[in-house]
Amino acid sequence: MDLHAYLRERRDLLEAALERALPRVSDLPQRLHESIRYSVMAPGKRLRPILVMASAEAVGGSAEAVLPTACALECIHAFSLIHDDLPCMDDDDTRRGRPTNHKVFGEAMALLAGDALLALAFELVASNASAVAPDRLVSAVAMIARASGTWGMVGGQVMDIEAEGRPISGEWLQQIHARKTGALLTASSVVGALLAGGAEEQLERLREYGAHVGLAFQIADDILDVVGDEEKIGKPVGSDQKQDKATYPKLYGLERSLAMARTESTAAIAAVEPLGPSAEPLRAIAHYIVERDL
Amino acid sequence: MDLHAYLRERRDLLEAALERALPRVSDLPQRLHESIRYSVMAPGKRLRPILVMASAEAVGGSAEAVLPTACALECIHAFSLIHDDLPCMDDDDTRRGRPTNHKVFGEAMALLAGDALLALAFELVASNASAVAPDRLVSAVAMIARASGTWGMVGGQVMDIEAEGRPISGEWLQQIHARKTGALLTASSVVGALLAGGAEEQLERLREYGAHVGLAFQIADDILDVVGDEEKIGKPVGSDQKQDKATYPKLYGLERSLAMARTESTAAIAAVEPLGPSAEPLRAIAHYIVERDL
Repeated sequence: MDLHAYLRERRDLLEAALERALPRVSDLPQRLHESIRYSVMAPGKRLRPILVMASAEAVGGSAEAVLPTACALECIHAFSLIHDDLPCMDDDDTRRGRPTNHKVFGEAMALLAGDALLALAFELVASNASAVAPDRLVSAVAMIARASGTWGMVGGQVMDIEAEGRPISGEWLQQIHARKTGALLTASSVVGALLAGGAEEQLERLREYGAHVGLAFQIADDILDVVGDEEKIGKPVGSDQKQDKATYPKLYGLERSLAMARTESTAAIAAVEPLGPSAEPLRAIAHYIVERDL
Repeated sequence: MDLHAYLRERRDLLEAALERALPRVSDLPQRLHESIRYSVMAPGKRLRPILVMASAEAVGGSAEAVLPTACALECIHAFSLIHDDLPCMDDDDTRRGRPTNHKVFGEAMALLAGDALLALAFELVASNASAVAPDRLVSAVAMIARASGTWGMVGGQVMDIEAEGRPISGEWLQQIHARKTGALLTASSVVGALLAGGAEEQLERLREYGAHVGLAFQIADDILDVVGDEEKIGKPVGSDQKQDKATYPKLYGLERSLAMARTESTAAIAAVEPLGPSAEPLRAIAHYIVERDL
């Protein structure tokens, strides 16, 4: 399959939907809405929303029918980036070559833009009621909320901060990443199929896919932070090391980390083999996540 | 009716439910969970969750059946207080006589505790699925999310910051408060009845009740900031004035502000007259909100 054409088409769908879903700058408070759009509409891979769409398609659903939830996942991702960049967190001045949100809009506005995006995400999931059975929407809300908060992204973020500057085990590193990035990627991989009416056995395959893809993605990200092209990764090479963050290359070396990422990617691909041809985009994404720039 | 006994009983119910709903300190990441509990379990009026319960009871439902959503509203309230107190916002060192969250746990942890609480709130609403029809849960999620984000609390917060130090009209002040505090109080007043199966006409009465109670509450709060007992209001008297915040006493004077608060309280009471005796707690709360310490 032509993965790049697939990604481009889904990205276009998503960005048009975001354009409609985000508060307009002409509505009050305008500065908040500018701040929200500045971060969400910045160029990005759109990995989480594309996983939502590909997951729906994998069980015979359509990308269009799950667009509000795809937008919600991108809002949650943007919220996490805005808060991560704040001075009390990673204190980053640039992201993907542009000034970070708080550098442009100030800290208070960046904080509140993140807060508003997290709330908006759940409004969007709940807005899908005409296309999806309500019991499935309720499950989607529960799944996404759990993956965003202390049992997922936020909890993993705290564990990552607590690990800075300390020696940690491989098992511990995997725990951190499973929550910090894995939980939301897993939710993205499952929720599309959940909304599209997938059977429990299919959702289980996608859960396994998401866990492996999440880990593959994080290991690849750690590797790119060491060897990547600054322009492509959108942050200075070596920033993890500067902050003394726990990473795979630090713990296992580059070569072994790459082998681990490939093992996870292969496991992700195998997990959705039973879903047949409709899961081909998911398999191509799992492959691409590791091979993109390595 | 004995309002104080009513409030005490509902508060006890709520606090026992919060104790079960919040992440345990023994679970990782422990420091995050300590931070969350420090703020949520701090003594408070519990106005929003009590409104949720009283709203359910007003249409013949039970307080117990809506407890997860009552907890969710308190989590959202706690999230907003933690973020409001941060140095980049109001930069407050104490709240209700105790050090603010970031003073105890640091800014990064306070930021993340707030984020985790907002996510947890939606997990809690969605967790109510055994007791409530799923289409009503989906509406509850949408209503609470909308009241929390840019169309409600967060948007009002931004408008409040933007108004600092500027002369503003009475209409504008009301707009700010309708979003900053009114939206979440209105959602609290409606969502209990929504979950308990209330009819559209009943929900409409409660919407009107919530809008008036929200405004009455805010005006009373502004008045207490000028004339209140520091120990009871939990913050230094005169802190709004210090920050040059837009308030009712500043715009209308104390006497006229008090008359306005009483007018709103009376309108709130009238709005739920058609609901009969089961709405008596709601009426007593509307009265109490204005007369508590004045």
